[in-house]
Amino acid sequence: MTTGVDLAGRSHQRTSVLLRRWLAETHTPVAEGRMRLTIGSLRLGADVVYDSPTGAHSFGPIHVLDATGAPVEVAEPALLAAACSADARARALHDAPINAADSGTLLDWLLDALPRRAVDPLALPADLVAVARSVSDGAEARRWLSTHVEGRLLPAIRGWEPDDAAGATAALLTRGALAVIGLLGRRGVVHETDLIADLADRLRAIADAYPDAEWLVRHWLTSPTLTDLAVLNGSGLRYRAASGEIRVRAVPFEVRNPLWSGAPDAPGVPIPELGEGWSLRPVQVLGADGGPDVALVHRWMNNGHVAVNWNQAWPVPRWQDELAGQLAGRHSLPCIVGLGGRDVGYLELYRVQRDKLARCYSHDPHDLGVHVAIGEPDAVGRGVGSSLLRAVAEGLLAVDPDCGRVVAEPDVHNGASVGAFGKAGFGRAAEVGLPNKNSALMVFGRSAPGE
Amino acid sequence: MTTGVDLAGRSHQRTSVLLRRWLAETHTPVAEGRMRLTIGSLRLGADVVYDSPTGAHSFGPIHVLDATGAPVEVAEPALLAAACSADARARALHDAPINAADSGTLLDWLLDALPRRAVDPLALPADLVAVARSVSDGAEARRWLSTHVEGRLLPAIRGWEPDDAAGATAALLTRGALAVIGLLGRRGVVHETDLIADLADRLRAIADAYPDAEWLVRHWLTSPTLTDLAVLNGSGLRYRAASGEIRVRAVPFEVRNPLWSGAPDAPGVPIPELGEGWSLRPVQVLGADGGPDVALVHRWMNNGHVAVNWNQAWPVPRWQDELAGQLAGRHSLPCIVGLGGRDVGYLELYRVQRDKLARCYSHDPHDLGVHVAIGEPDAVGRGVGSSLLRAVAEGLLAVDPDCGRVVAEPDVHNGASVGAFGKAGFGRAAEVGLPNKNSALMVFGRSAPGE
Repeated sequence: MTTGVDLAGRSHQRTSVLLRRWLAETHTPVAEGRMRLTIGSLRLGADVVYDSPTGAHSFGPIHVLDATGAPVEVAEPALLAAACSADARARALHDAPINAADSGTLLDWLLDALPRRAVDPLALPADLVAVARSVSDGAEARRWLSTHVEGRLLPAIRGWEPDDAAGATAALLTRGALAVIGLLGRRGVVHETDLIADLADRLRAIADAYPDAEWLVRHWLTSPTLTDLAVLNGSGLRYRAASGEIRVRAVPFEVRNPLWSGAPDAPGVPIPELGEGWSLRPVQVLGADGGPDVALVHRWMNNGHVAVNWNQAWPVPRWQDELAGQLAGRHSLPCIVGLGGRDVGYLELYRVQRDKLARCYSHDPHDLGVHVAIGEPDAVGRGVGSSLLRAVAEGLLAVDPDCGRVVAEPDVHNGASVGAFGKAGFGRAAEVGLPNKNSALMVFGRSAPGE
Repeated sequence: MTTGVDLAGRSHQRTSVLLRRWLAETHTPVAEGRMRLTIGSLRLGADVVYDSPTGAHSFGPIHVLDATGAPVEVAEPALLAAACSADARARALHDAPINAADSGTLLDWLLDALPRRAVDPLALPADLVAVARSVSDGAEARRWLSTHVEGRLLPAIRGWEPDDAAGATAALLTRGALAVIGLLGRRGVVHETDLIADLADRLRAIADAYPDAEWLVRHWLTSPTLTDLAVLNGSGLRYRAASGEIRVRAVPFEVRNPLWSGAPDAPGVPIPELGEGWSLRPVQVLGADGGPDVALVHRWMNNGHVAVNWNQAWPVPRWQDELAGQLAGRHSLPCIVGLGGRDVGYLELYRVQRDKLARCYSHDPHDLGVHVAIGEPDAVGRGVGSSLLRAVAEGLLAVDPDCGRVVAEPDVHNGASVGAFGKAGFGRAAEVGLPNKNSALMVFGRSAPGE
């Protein structure tokens, strides 16, 4: 199946563009080697032959897989576009702009773009593409970067409206220098990390020398994520202007910041005091079968109302492993929640820094997150959930003075959960794409909305 | 652009299936040689290398064309499916089943079908495909046909519910013996016309020998069209069952009957007497510039309210050629319509037998058709159109005693026109696909509905 694919050809190029975008916009982790994923109803497999820190990955032949995981045939770009469109529409709420009857789809764009031989719904400016194609070695790349930063980036930063960091970042950095560095890395002309370090040095020099540029450059150097533009996934996407013309309305989203070297490790997850009749204790894993807590979590996770959202209706041994694994690390703390002395639910408290959410928003190293499941069906509703969520958020902020925010990421379709977080005082900060859902990023700060 | 296309490969095979279906379901004429067409927003070009009487055409590489008609790249099946879906949805009314939010599209089918390696949304039974693949010469094909007709077709006909000719035809003939003959013809194993003649002989013998099979077999031998199943175009199409499962709900449509040798020529178009203040005279083309009638038709056709439906806002010389051409033939008679002595509109009267409509429904050789445009904007509305249409239909039936039906084919989106025909006493008999629109087939019989 892998023979006869022209990896330099337009078809593979276009499929790769879509796959790269999808991976970025759903914050799906990528590593060199075999990759399998499901987009909508389409199973895909590909070898990641270049894993790029800026997301400029390259792939061997991209195959459609059957239910057993066997390759069926090479994935056509239009097919991938169809799968991406279906998936993006399913991820978004029914009344989201992307689901409007006149919003168009990625396929409309593709049909419109083909005769123009366009490959990417969000193409780089032609001069940057020309640079990325013509630069032939590392020294030349560094000279280009120097000219670009001095001659183009700096004047643009100094001319930008100071309160629009997101717009400036997407226009000048992620869709500018970083995209070019990615293309050069994929071509094998530079080591991206070297050129990124060079860029960071130049940016630090700018921040020191130009006070009017510092607001933006410091943001670029210190934020865990940077704003980029999404064209495959996001509720606000549209592919058709009001005039009916095909015009992609991209939406901002956050990507990992390759300029950022990472924050120092925050401590593990603290155990909050809840009060108001609530109690909380870490799960205990005991004996050969995990003991009563594992059995309890297993039972809750296999209850329909939990399973439909958690999708973790696993057998006991898998839960035993999962819980033991969490307890052994510093990422997430699994807990049993009691109300009036009765065990009613399961809670995971986690450091965002060590979670998949870390790549989705500009988190602080001390941010904490929460996953919650009221396992007993008769304890669901009547404000129980929101009362618990408020108690947990307030308890976490009280027990960890360095923590400024408690966050959560319910599926945007889970209106009950989004509503409960809202009622508990969490504010909806963004919609974030994750590998298999779009989540509402809910944030409870030290002065939470609704307080 | 034409190099490197694997014409035996699954991708070309799948694109060809879709293109064949689209041509059939839109009753688009096909001839060997270069073909260009537009499906939705997609321009396509292909060489027809085998022009089949059963629609089993084969094509050279199928290319996407740019606005100048130059090939851009080979058309992927998913892209063609997207274009077909968009076109079918645009052809149908907004509230048609195919436009329902949960109807799915051909792409959903394709995404579902790929892992099963399915190529055709309406596949033949596996045993017939096996026949079509294994038969290796004409003698073998005739032996298979003999066995098929005696052993399978005849018992099936005799067991069929006698008032369901359409269902029986699609199930037993067009999706049976004729489809196999088409596949054998495309493979070059038989001359389709020979095997079709052989089939017709066998059917005549059956009609003579089995009175309980005659009702259907006579229909097959004498109808200008046969019922087939549409899976790309038609308001009633759906690709998703109520359960959400992908299941194509095909809809019946008519195709040319290759078993039918054609009716004797009907005479040219008669000129009806209209009465009720209406007058009618053939257009006169006079002198170098065509004269006043050509100028009048040209002016009307360039009026916005006419141009939007007729799409013939041509310059004078083209209209002069068009009208002279019509007057020289026996297909269509172009006329000027007067009301109370004032010229108000343009009418084309035509023999369906010689029109594109002939391949769309089981017409009688004496059926007449009408195209109408009220050219003077101030004469539009107030029932003028329907009064004219009734006068024309009644006049035609009166002047041509052999004519049993007067028909018309307004675009299904042209509610005003469909409504005027309805008010005039025409009944809506079907929706028919034409190369660039779906039309409501409106029929005024000797005892018209509404009389």
